[in-house]
Amino acid sequence: MSLVEAVLAGERLALARVLTQVENDTPAGRTALNELFPYTGQAHMIGITGSPGTGKSSLVNHLAKALRMKSDQRVAIIAVDPSSPFTGGALLGDRVRMRDLSGDTGVFIRSMAARGALGGLAHSTAAAAQVLDAAGFHFVLIETVGAGQSEVDIARLAHTTIVVEAPGMGDDIQAIKAGILEIADILVINKADRPGVDNTERALRSMLELANPGRKSQGEHTWQPQVLRTIASQGEGMAALVTAIDEHAAYLRSSGAWQSREQERVQNNLQNLIQATLVARWQKQVAPDHYQAVLQRLYRREISPYQAVDLLLNLED
Amino acid sequence: MSLVEAVLAGERLALARVLTQVENDTPAGRTALNELFPYTGQAHMIGITGSPGTGKSSLVNHLAKALRMKSDQRVAIIAVDPSSPFTGGALLGDRVRMRDLSGDTGVFIRSMAARGALGGLAHSTAAAAQVLDAAGFHFVLIETVGAGQSEVDIARLAHTTIVVEAPGMGDDIQAIKAGILEIADILVINKADRPGVDNTERALRSMLELANPGRKSQGEHTWQPQVLRTIASQGEGMAALVTAIDEHAAYLRSSGAWQSREQERVQNNLQNLIQATLVARWQKQVAPDHYQAVLQRLYRREISPYQAVDLLLNLED
Repeated sequence: MSLVEAVLAGERLALARVLTQVENDTPAGRTALNELFPYTGQAHMIGITGSPGTGKSSLVNHLAKALRMKSDQRVAIIAVDPSSPFTGGALLGDRVRMRDLSGDTGVFIRSMAARGALGGLAHSTAAAAQVLDAAGFHFVLIETVGAGQSEVDIARLAHTTIVVEAPGMGDDIQAIKAGILEIADILVINKADRPGVDNTERALRSMLELANPGRKSQGEHTWQPQVLRTIASQGEGMAALVTAIDEHAAYLRSSGAWQSREQERVQNNLQNLIQATLVARWQKQVAPDHYQAVLQRLYRREISPYQAVDLLLNLED
Repeated sequence: MSLVEAVLAGERLALARVLTQVENDTPAGRTALNELFPYTGQAHMIGITGSPGTGKSSLVNHLAKALRMKSDQRVAIIAVDPSSPFTGGALLGDRVRMRDLSGDTGVFIRSMAARGALGGLAHSTAAAAQVLDAAGFHFVLIETVGAGQSEVDIARLAHTTIVVEAPGMGDDIQAIKAGILEIADILVINKADRPGVDNTERALRSMLELANPGRKSQGEHTWQPQVLRTIASQGEGMAALVTAIDEHAAYLRSSGAWQSREQERVQNNLQNLIQATLVARWQKQVAPDHYQAVLQRLYRREISPYQAVDLLLNLED
């Protein structure tokens, strides 16, 4: 049995090995993705994002358990850590999580750290999600941290995007949220037993209204982002969250948005690959001496960056 | 007088106009950057990053005032908002800031929202910083929010990177910090009148030790990241912060790191430009029909993403 066949047969060790190949973008990884690609397109990809301090990892844990309990469907978790670009170290929270879920063979957890290149993390996360999709996981939960480009990239990967908040995260948090709220399909206020939860919910609802002024009046085929309260550390609110996820899936399928998000994701992935390939080809083609000479002139400010690009890209003239 | 000459002469209106041209990457913007580039390389670029709730914007405000007071040098602020990719809206905090600093003609404030393309924000921030550098600002403060790729991009732009923390930001914050701490030259614990400040400082110092185990023993030409306490809302701790910035600049110049960071920044900027140019050229070259046909086959999963790239990039064969 080949490695890819073993992945399709559900063997965890083979899956881990292919994921490593794919993340490292080895030739074997590319071949495996080629062979697995026809089996993709089945999983419900769910992105979960939120600032540090919101209890997001705990929420993902309990959500995975709730999804398992409800329908016995298999759940994969990709924990993305874009904050560790230099060491590529493992998440601290990961060990806790492992202990909590590792008894269940219906759950597979993978953590990923940022890679060197710009867009590298988005690319390897997309590839890992494809492998898990082909391997037959019904849900792929993609968890990330922060409030920047990485969340937008996740929104592009996921069918459903969950944004996690917590009460009392400070005042200037308001400024940052508008953009994030625009990508939220479901908003979770975790740690809902904390003081200030009513204020937080009120603030979020008014920002949602600000971010999506039109949504209310657009008829039946629009999705109103849901606002839910949870206390993940006690498992509270998980059933309602699973229901909201189911409702969002039903909305996506009936409205045609499932397919359009799918296509957007595929196209995005293709464009990242094209970009990376173009750069790799150019790097092979340019003479290192020529590159260094141009760079030195740029350092001395004899030429501008745009003039340097002209000198470096017009090799074939 | 041309627009570029007006920028070099210190005219604010011309500066604002050139910044807009440069951010929008218009032909006029590129020409302006070409003409301004020989005048760059003078400013001290300072990146300031931190999670929401740390009071970072207030800190940047008071730091700008302190730099002005100490040496009457001109200060520019670029406030980057990577969280608002869809609307590109203005920062809420910006209006407050404007009111606070607008009386001083030695201060120039520019806010930037995320652009569409991957790496677009890093590119336009780099370009804006170059314009402000050429326009004669002694300090360019680049402020960003979040904990992801954008901070790393800032670290690459800046000579000095300041990471802002606040007491009591939650427990799982520890996991996220290791990567950010690696890029910090100066660590500020703002809101230092809050409870828990001693714990926060202890935790940060031990994480610093973890992140930079070797730094202590590397002799005189190494920089020990400094840990400072501030209460920005009351202007407390600003003098010490200005001193730390001066010391870091002196260290950078004496160790040769000033020049190497400069060169790294220039090279990085060049590579982003090359990437963007390669993609733009390819887009001009590919027939839209061919692209659509390949995309449809990909949607139907008849081919994999890698096979699609092969079909789209081997046009000249």
